[in-house]
Amino acid sequence: VRLSRRYPFCASHRLHSAELTEEQNQAIYGKCNNPYGHGHNYILEVAVSGAVDAVTGRVVDLEKLDAFVRREVIARYDHRNLNEDCEEYLDQVPTTEVVGVEIAKRLSKQWANAMPGESARLERIRIWETDRNIFEVRV
Amino acid sequence: VRLSRRYPFCASHRLHSAELTEEQNQAIYGKCNNPYGHGHNYILEVAVSGAVDAVTGRVVDLEKLDAFVRREVIARYDHRNLNEDCEEYLDQVPTTEVVGVEIAKRLSKQWANAMPGESARLERIRIWETDRNIFEVRV
Amino acid sequence: VRLSRRYPFCASHRLHSAELTEEQNQAIYGKCNNPYGHGHNYILEVAVSGAVDAVTGRVVDLEKLDAFVRREVIARYDHRNLNEDCEEYLDQVPTTEVVGVEIAKRLSKQWANAMPGESARLERIRIWETDRNIFEVRV
Amino acid sequence: VRLSRRYPFCASHRLHSAELTEEQNQAIYGKCNNPYGHGHNYILEVAVSGAVDAVTGRVVDLEKLDAFVRREVIARYDHRNLNEDCEEYLDQVPTTEVVGVEIAKRLSKQWANAMPGESARLERIRIWETDRNIFEVRV
Amino acid sequence: VRLSRRYPFCASHRLHSAELTEEQNQAIYGKCNNPYGHGHNYILEVAVSGAVDAVTGRVVDLEKLDAFVRREVIARYDHRNLNEDCEEYLDQVPTTEVVGVEIAKRLSKQWANAMPGESARLERIRIWETDRNIFEVRV
Amino acid sequence: VRLSRRYPFCASHRLHSAELTEEQNQAIYGKCNNPYGHGHNYILEVAVSGAVDAVTGRVVDLEKLDAFVRREVIARYDHRNLNEDCEEYLDQVPTTEVVGVEIAKRLSKQWANAMPGESARLERIRIWETDRNIFEVRV
Repeated sequence: VRLSRRYPFCASHRLHSAELTEEQNQAIYGKCNNPYGHGHNYILEVAVSGAVDAVTGRVVDLEKLDAFVRREVIARYDHRNLNEDCEEYLDQVPTTEVVGVEIAKRLSKQWANAMPGESARLERIRIWETDRNIFEVRV
Repeated sequence: VRLSRRYPFCASHRLHSAELTEEQNQAIYGKCNNPYGHGHNYILEVAVSGAVDAVTGRVVDLEKLDAFVRREVIARYDHRNLNEDCEEYLDQVPTTEVVGVEIAKRLSKQWANAMPGESARLERIRIWETDRNIFEVRV
Repeated sequence: VRLSRRYPFCASHRLHSAELTEEQNQAIYGKCNNPYGHGHNYILEVAVSGAVDAVTGRVVDLEKLDAFVRREVIARYDHRNLNEDCEEYLDQVPTTEVVGVEIAKRLSKQWANAMPGESARLERIRIWETDRNIFEVRV
Repeated sequence: VRLSRRYPFCASHRLHSAELTEEQNQAIYGKCNNPYGHGHNYILEVAVSGAVDAVTGRVVDLEKLDAFVRREVIARYDHRNLNEDCEEYLDQVPTTEVVGVEIAKRLSKQWANAMPGESARLERIRIWETDRNIFEVRV
Repeated sequence: VRLSRRYPFCASHRLHSAELTEEQNQAIYGKCNNPYGHGHNYILEVAVSGAVDAVTGRVVDLEKLDAFVRREVIARYDHRNLNEDCEEYLDQVPTTEVVGVEIAKRLSKQWANAMPGESARLERIRIWETDRNIFEVRV
Repeated sequence: VRLSRRYPFCASHRLHSAELTEEQNQAIYGKCNNPYGHGHNYILEVAVSGAVDAVTGRVVDLEKLDAFVRREVIARYDHRNLNEDCEEYLDQVPTTEVVGVEIAKRLSKQWANAMPGESARLERIRIWETDRNIFEVRV
């Protein structure tokens, strides 16, 4: 059984690469290159899969999962400027692709420690940047 | 081609295991353990896949599929209390994980009889418990 | 300016009037009369209106509003059985019309005390029972 | 007949008043006071009302309305930082209440010039800041 | 208390006025003037208001309302071509404004006969043509 | 990383096969067989997957993708009658299954030419015919 659980967060970002010229940045990122940034209501979906526990009927302890995702992602990203507030984007562009890869790496690396006693495994994450743009990273 | 078709139903449930103490039930299920239960607007998504029929342009007979899902799931769960009204939850906790497994088993077991002449196969079911909690069971 | 703020809650109810016969209850409430009840993912929308404060740019203190609505409605209804857990429905049927009237009365009566220093007034509440059924009560 | 037409835009903002101390800003705006800002997928809804034209069957010329709203609001706000990119927020806090009032004023002031030959009148605007927070300003 | 109830229907239409030249039709309706038409998943919302019945807790008999709206609107419009299948659009352009006015007139005229014993009154109808275009007609 | 991008379009269609009798058409397609057709607000989702570019942080050039999908699909289908306006449905029934297969074939065949310099590959397309009916074709 796979459980997908969604966590909204609001953040701003600016798409601009120090390795590109102004013209290239403008050509590649268009209005997303606006110097002062812009923002989104992101939705993060975390999918875990595993067997259903015969006693509890649960695939994962939801309280533990929520505490983990909130501490590692939501508390750090919600109501933040990704470029300025999050060290992982100091040297890479916070496109939603890159944000997805960072979240997947962070959750994946700490899964075993943060979710002791859980047999479920982290399977993938998805991020809705808008209703129209959805990114998925498999773990 | 895979067709996913959605069927809403409204039901109530209580998460409580007879094999656990009161304290354990409270610790594991939290407010979902409330003695009198609570409820949801569930959405069941049934996904079938197969080849597109060269004459009809269809992957499955939708009327037949609807009649099958409504008889086996919706008529039994909609506007019901899962714990009290459905015998399959007398001895197991109706978490949405367990409900998903039960629906998948029931549809899967009767697929061949209920859908004669159809080449499409049942692939997976998904249940939205809320906008934020989605469960998937592959068949 | 009018602010509408939404609060989801999950609850169960049974539509059954002690003043009606079994046949009348069945005729009027149909499957909503199921003895063991059923449930919904309700969404409560609270609308307040007032002038925008010249310094803060706010029409109401959102933290105060949230604390008020959570204490008076969400904490009492979320993950509850309205018929069994809420005394206001011991002697009246918890249709969503009646639930809406009760919420409006309760919030309205305590508004002045719970929201000191706020010039905004409570204007109306709305409840989504499902995507298709929406109830509105003006205060 | 009233027509409501929706226009999405993505922007960032920071809630911070120069007339308040750091402590007051923090107390009033909470995480919305984060120095580097955050952002949203806003939805602007513009409502106009009038008689249905007997020949065209239309209440307003949609192309003209779109051009007007896009020029006056969307082109100025979409993929922008409201605090830094829009002069109207240099000396007031871009809460969504204030943004709504500004949009209503701007559209209202230019309606007659921008919509020549149209008998419909601008009635109200609404902004969704998130799925849960909706602001309405009557014109 | 006001109840708003939603009814989806799928239909096609073409915007073209016999009183206008080809050029005018093209200028006014743009791609909606395509000779073979196009279509939408419309949502009709019917709002009724009245007092809550002291015994039933209901503002209106939902079964009666559904039967009325389905017979008068949904059965006639769902999976139809509005221009070709509905006589009311033989001599007027089926813009959603006009469709809304027609539905409001039809429901209003027959309300008293179709809803005997109901004290609730029909208040307004709304139609979603798409997620972005919403029309409202007060009765 | 997989990016899914959504494109809405409004179109009409009629389900009717020249290889079937009137009775068979009526039995198989029901109200979708209405002679004058009906329509939908379709949503096309195009999913592409590939590595994230180390400099741009992007999996694909969105502007290029949008131009390609708009030219090949949206410009041809939006505000059209699929049966009458699109030659690919002259000799096959435009069920959404068939439409999905056609879109997948068309995008797939031209991907290499239309998306020069892109390492991402087209993975699948999905079409929402309504909120309840979703079709997926893998490439």
